[in-house]
Amino acid sequence: MTASATDDRTRGEEPAIIDVHDWLQEVAGHTSMEVTRLPLEELPGWRTDPATGNLRHDSGGFFTVEGLDVRRPGEPVPAWTQPIINQPETGILGILLKRVDGVPYVLMQAKNEPGNPDGPQVSPTVQATRSNYTRVHQGRAVPYLEFFREPRGRVLADTRQSEQGAWFYRKRNRNMVVEVAERVPAAEGFRWLPLARVYGLLAVPDRVNMDARTVLSCLPPQRGAEPAGGFAAAVARSRDASRGARHELGEILSWLSGARSTADVRAALVPLDRVRGWRRSGGRISHESGRFFDVIGVRVEARGREVSGWSQPMLAPVGTGLVAFLVRRIGGVVHALVRARVDPGYTDVVELAPTVQCTPGNYDHLPPAARPPLVDLVVDTLAGAAPGRVRFDTVLSEEGGRFHHARNRYVVVETDDDPLPGHPGFRWLALHQIDELLRHSYYLNVEARSLTACLHGLAHGPAYGVPSRARVPLLTAGAR
Amino acid sequence: MTASATDDRTRGEEPAIIDVHDWLQEVAGHTSMEVTRLPLEELPGWRTDPATGNLRHDSGGFFTVEGLDVRRPGEPVPAWTQPIINQPETGILGILLKRVDGVPYVLMQAKNEPGNPDGPQVSPTVQATRSNYTRVHQGRAVPYLEFFREPRGRVLADTRQSEQGAWFYRKRNRNMVVEVAERVPAAEGFRWLPLARVYGLLAVPDRVNMDARTVLSCLPPQRGAEPAGGFAAAVARSRDASRGARHELGEILSWLSGARSTADVRAALVPLDRVRGWRRSGGRISHESGRFFDVIGVRVEARGREVSGWSQPMLAPVGTGLVAFLVRRIGGVVHALVRARVDPGYTDVVELAPTVQCTPGNYDHLPPAARPPLVDLVVDTLAGAAPGRVRFDTVLSEEGGRFHHARNRYVVVETDDDPLPGHPGFRWLALHQIDELLRHSYYLNVEARSLTACLHGLAHGPAYGVPSRARVPLLTAGAR
Repeated sequence: MTASATDDRTRGEEPAIIDVHDWLQEVAGHTSMEVTRLPLEELPGWRTDPATGNLRHDSGGFFTVEGLDVRRPGEPVPAWTQPIINQPETGILGILLKRVDGVPYVLMQAKNEPGNPDGPQVSPTVQATRSNYTRVHQGRAVPYLEFFREPRGRVLADTRQSEQGAWFYRKRNRNMVVEVAERVPAAEGFRWLPLARVYGLLAVPDRVNMDARTVLSCLPPQRGAEPAGGFAAAVARSRDASRGARHELGEILSWLSGARSTADVRAALVPLDRVRGWRRSGGRISHESGRFFDVIGVRVEARGREVSGWSQPMLAPVGTGLVAFLVRRIGGVVHALVRARVDPGYTDVVELAPTVQCTPGNYDHLPPAARPPLVDLVVDTLAGAAPGRVRFDTVLSEEGGRFHHARNRYVVVETDDDPLPGHPGFRWLALHQIDELLRHSYYLNVEARSLTACLHGLAHGPAYGVPSRARVPLLTAGAR
Repeated sequence: MTASATDDRTRGEEPAIIDVHDWLQEVAGHTSMEVTRLPLEELPGWRTDPATGNLRHDSGGFFTVEGLDVRRPGEPVPAWTQPIINQPETGILGILLKRVDGVPYVLMQAKNEPGNPDGPQVSPTVQATRSNYTRVHQGRAVPYLEFFREPRGRVLADTRQSEQGAWFYRKRNRNMVVEVAERVPAAEGFRWLPLARVYGLLAVPDRVNMDARTVLSCLPPQRGAEPAGGFAAAVARSRDASRGARHELGEILSWLSGARSTADVRAALVPLDRVRGWRRSGGRISHESGRFFDVIGVRVEARGREVSGWSQPMLAPVGTGLVAFLVRRIGGVVHALVRARVDPGYTDVVELAPTVQCTPGNYDHLPPAARPPLVDLVVDTLAGAAPGRVRFDTVLSEEGGRFHHARNRYVVVETDDDPLPGHPGFRWLALHQIDELLRHSYYLNVEARSLTACLHGLAHGPAYGVPSRARVPLLTAGAR
């Protein structure tokens, strides 16, 4: 089977059988990527601005690492400073979709990034910063970009969304899914995969990258084989907008409007050499406590990528995070418990986050009031010590172009009760309401979108929810 | 009749007859406001920061006047700097609504502001910056605020919206309409007015203030006496979400997502003393050409307001602007032609603006390519030299708390043709699609919202559309 992924059959007219794991491994073999740590002071092409301490590229492009001064009067931690990545340009994350005999296929790329913990991941068709496509870094043209810049085909999703608000200052990307009718051959490193197969791969650690997850979360429900029953069927049914919900959408919007208007948070970029509690030594920037993250430098030697070598700063989080939805059936409709979360890098103060989103170790030194609610409930359920049903539990990594080995344990726990009735910071949203909000910008944060994609994937049934090596039909280059 | 507005009947149980013009004049008599120009250097309580030239209040509250550096590569004006008002806090603009025998009434305030060209205007129930309600300026409590801070009643609208993106840096306010069932007496300076009457007053110059207009634009259609026919009936019908539209909403959202993602605009606050082309002399800041606006200082002596006197900088525009919608019936549904507009102060790059929004004089010195499309068509129609039908034409003023005599001529012209078929910067939106977008933040800019309120008002029929002095029932304090 190893050969079939590249032999003529897979580029021919007929769907072929492929093992995605083999494909990723094969790509990993073709496109080696060697990542070496380098002190920040020695990164070729990058300099520390003498006036500010900010890290920036000689070209002025890509991104900068600056300081952020955050004030939150009245909160357990009322003020702090931190390094933050400032990347003001908007990129495109786009997936091409094509239906064959009614079955949706998506054109995915096996893409390696220096921060990936385990080699190439299944990535969107296009994943391009503006620097990429205006060629600031002199790389090759971005394949398939023309389908998204001036959309060619039927636009199924097209919305600007934020990324990690604790690590990025107002980063946002355009998330798109475009359905094509025409024949679009898969280029080297790309494959047409059944959408259901990609959903299934979400249950495998580090196989589907963050960019693919956020784009998939914005894709409205697609017709396909409906699951027969159980939780999978409940998820599928709950994306039907004609179903009921615990709260009207207007109530949810009003709650969020209130949260955004009353949160007192002021965040301002400051020179990186003015952040307090962080130190630059040993060629990197770390918090004095060893918590949160380090800013490190890496040298990348790549083969089979746009350019053959480069250096860059990266943000390397300390510890694995926990990202969890509590879900509950209300009137037969699956609802997820979302939290109104303030992060300093958000475009509009507050976004809707998973029920739990934290790196537990970051709270060790803080008063109990600062520890997020429901962490213990999720941890106990995972340990079998609480009655919730674990519906999803996989470690996935975050954007490997900026974050080094940033991993979160993504969890969906079904419960029968409301553990926080009437809590002003949380609301139960029906899955079809989440779909409606995802048509618009900046409602769900990137962690909630990743987890929503995983939840949507569960509707494709347990056959796809296990890390099987089962072979499924691969839509090939010449599909109708 | 002059006495009836304040006699016992209007505070009693029965709707009374009131003339809103008389009421405003009476309030003007009770609450004198004297506005005197003062040089910026002599404003008590305000100082010019010696390091930056920025204007700020001694308390650190209210707002600052800073500089903005704007880059728009490839545009007719690829870069400029300007003064801008920076007011990062979010205020509340709220209207209380109550139904009596099915007829909606709204609790409005007759409020004067130093920048109003002609005395008090009909204003929302609550119009409060955070400084107001956290009492930075030591004023009295804001009446009725408790209905909005933790909404008491049924929330009909609650969404954050931007304000003038050319004059404010990322200003946003929470726009709310809350329906109450209980008896809410009208305090001194407040009146319960029939909603239809307020809509009608929009056709009178400078009678309904900007804050009331933006809140009203977010109010979904309210049942009431439906107009019999003609354009008014077409407007009412076109707000019904079950009606068709030229484009699916998804197409509109994708178009906007594209516009936001491709516009290359970078705006950064800079010290006010670094703006180029502006000079500070004679106690104010003006553009060298005399165009755009001046930053002036005023001293205000007021009676019957929160505080009895204060000083502040204001932005005083040069010339009267033109704000116009072209509207067109497509399949019997009224559509408005909106434009994707970039202003440097927007939260997310682009908002949907009226068909025409400009101060024609500001373009005299620029190449023809910089002159906005369709200005001449609207001007010709107003002069009777083009075949469009003028449906609305009234001069209204902008927020009088920050802007001094800022007036725009608001115009709705109905046309049978599409003057710019396929233009990438414009789209026809059905009125019910505008309603749907107004549930969310930052889609329609403040000028489009003002004009949308005027358009909605037309559905209440020509009887309300003329500046009559006709007397209509006034809902009084003790209404059921």
